[in-house]
Amino acid sequence: MRTQVCIVGGGPSGLLLAQLLHKHGIDTVILERRSRAYVLARIRAGVLERGLVDLMHEAGVAGRLEREGLVHEGAAIAAGEALFRIDFKALTGHTVVVYGQTEVTRDLYDARDATGGETRFEVEDVAICDADTDAPYVTFRQEGTDHRIDCDFVAGCDGFHGVSRQTIPDRVRQEFEKVYPFGWLGVLSQTPPVEDEIIYARSERGFALCSMRNAELSRYYVQCPLSDRAEDWSDAAFWDELRRRLPARVAERLVTGPSIEKSIAPLRSFVCEPMRWGRLFLCGDAAHIVPPTGAKGLNTAASDIHYLYEAMVRYYRDNDREALDGYSRRALARVWKTQRFSWWMTTLLHSFPEQSAFDLRLQAADLAFLRDSEAAQRALAENYVGLPY
Amino acid sequence: MRTQVCIVGGGPSGLLLAQLLHKHGIDTVILERRSRAYVLARIRAGVLERGLVDLMHEAGVAGRLEREGLVHEGAAIAAGEALFRIDFKALTGHTVVVYGQTEVTRDLYDARDATGGETRFEVEDVAICDADTDAPYVTFRQEGTDHRIDCDFVAGCDGFHGVSRQTIPDRVRQEFEKVYPFGWLGVLSQTPPVEDEIIYARSERGFALCSMRNAELSRYYVQCPLSDRAEDWSDAAFWDELRRRLPARVAERLVTGPSIEKSIAPLRSFVCEPMRWGRLFLCGDAAHIVPPTGAKGLNTAASDIHYLYEAMVRYYRDNDREALDGYSRRALARVWKTQRFSWWMTTLLHSFPEQSAFDLRLQAADLAFLRDSEAAQRALAENYVGLPY
Repeated sequence: MRTQVCIVGGGPSGLLLAQLLHKHGIDTVILERRSRAYVLARIRAGVLERGLVDLMHEAGVAGRLEREGLVHEGAAIAAGEALFRIDFKALTGHTVVVYGQTEVTRDLYDARDATGGETRFEVEDVAICDADTDAPYVTFRQEGTDHRIDCDFVAGCDGFHGVSRQTIPDRVRQEFEKVYPFGWLGVLSQTPPVEDEIIYARSERGFALCSMRNAELSRYYVQCPLSDRAEDWSDAAFWDELRRRLPARVAERLVTGPSIEKSIAPLRSFVCEPMRWGRLFLCGDAAHIVPPTGAKGLNTAASDIHYLYEAMVRYYRDNDREALDGYSRRALARVWKTQRFSWWMTTLLHSFPEQSAFDLRLQAADLAFLRDSEAAQRALAENYVGLPY
Repeated sequence: MRTQVCIVGGGPSGLLLAQLLHKHGIDTVILERRSRAYVLARIRAGVLERGLVDLMHEAGVAGRLEREGLVHEGAAIAAGEALFRIDFKALTGHTVVVYGQTEVTRDLYDARDATGGETRFEVEDVAICDADTDAPYVTFRQEGTDHRIDCDFVAGCDGFHGVSRQTIPDRVRQEFEKVYPFGWLGVLSQTPPVEDEIIYARSERGFALCSMRNAELSRYYVQCPLSDRAEDWSDAAFWDELRRRLPARVAERLVTGPSIEKSIAPLRSFVCEPMRWGRLFLCGDAAHIVPPTGAKGLNTAASDIHYLYEAMVRYYRDNDREALDGYSRRALARVWKTQRFSWWMTTLLHSFPEQSAFDLRLQAADLAFLRDSEAAQRALAENYVGLPY
């Protein structure tokens, strides 16, 4: 089997890349370890930067996003009983769109189906071979049969636990990591969101987040110890804890209901350098993880896809390798800014076990400066709506 | 002896307060533990915020400052070989003035002399008594004789090591502190400054600062281990180290000469709460210390003086105690923002022994965001020229 670009990983990054390349007549094969149903059942974030929205348009898959996505012109920050708004639109001229990652993936699969592009599910033992030569290939097993795909390039879109990153030899690869001493307990519930906009709340009891998927589907989170287990949290206990972390005037309007999904996610910052090795290019979670506080996971994957897709188009159209050669440097420059922003939002809003009394006051001053300074709000908003590519 | 406001400490804070109160007919006595010559010989910072410049005008002591002070419309940030400018004037409409703290103190003493206000030098065993009553008094010994001053209020302007803060009982007082694992080795030299504007430099070898007192007097610093001793640093070693931490195009223009003064200062963040106990009011270093990175020491003392002087004027003129009652809250709100800024500038620009590879990349990303975002630059500039009172 032969293709131009072999894409390892059938999540939103790989699918988006495939769709964008298809628009330019570049052939791809997607290999996915899981089933399509499994991929589509994953609950993930749902705040899309303008850059990702633009890419969805460019890929021709923005129809439903345009109809069903909720345009958010701002978000609120709560600190104890205080509450103030960051007006993204007024500060930057841009907005974000609330639209679940699951929906993005679904739209991309529908588009993939329409193009007839090849996607192999439930593949095993994927190995990326000779990536540092001009003739890379990928081997895998499917339904007991071994396969080989020869290709020009491999796009590693297979997430944090995938094989792509591990393919880059240790002598070349450098990994950077920060693990946070807490997790997020998240609940999805069939209830109207407490607010039209997202609320980020700092309280003495820890961080809380009020988010939503649509007008009838709410997504709430509370910071929790990593030792907690989701099954030990009753719905009632969750709602009680959430209420205590919100300003009273917000808490009293909270509509609760049974949880549809309840899970605990750890918070981690991670970056792999370089993001390119020979003809292998890493994208998204395969190369970097952010804590979810700034909603940057999927969006940063999209910025990788932007750089890689443009570079591949230039290569095939103009025989210009410069953009491919610069991929890692360009992608990482933005990745690290996003890491900084996600780290800052996380440290601004969470309780840390090791926080001294001085640190607590400093955190409160950071919130006070953000409340009082338009420049500080603009710096946040620029990051939240998405730094320019 | 009796006065309206007994000011403990004859440094710039106490002198400025005395002068401002004098303008409103409020009588003060200043008590200073050291000699006048000693106070005037202390080498300190020299970047004045607009707020302090305004207060000097209000106190009628800005004549020489206006003639000799250097107005700075911006400052430079270096990171390795990169160099970019923060344009305070364009970003905030305001500037800072470079004018040595020693000169401020000299001007204030000259003004004090002209008013005939009483200043007692080389006083010993100062004790602030009954500050929590309506009849406070201060006792001290001078030339072997015991004295007592009865007063309405006591202003504690006697610095970090003074008695004023210690007068607030432990059960009332809360102290917040952060000690940094390095110091600044500073050199004063009779050489033209390498640049017209101040340069803050981050290098792999640690922080460096290029500053000045005037067109012929330079002040340079390099971050150093706390275990270093100034006397072990030859002038040649200092200049070599400084050059290595600056971009080559700056280093090659550095004019060196013998050091006039050379010393190592530790870096510390410290805040005492509350800043008022009964009729005792803490100002400046008596209540808070910042690391020198943001040049906020004298300036934050000035903001305390602003709040206290206005409160006292309202008390004596209008019999209005509200501003006195609100002094600690108002002063601390600004103090903590200044602490945040000084901490951020310090963490942005220094090498920390405990920094992980991840932390180093985050620091570089913070610098890159500052270089690329006008909003980030404005947030810095707002703090640097001085937050509004």
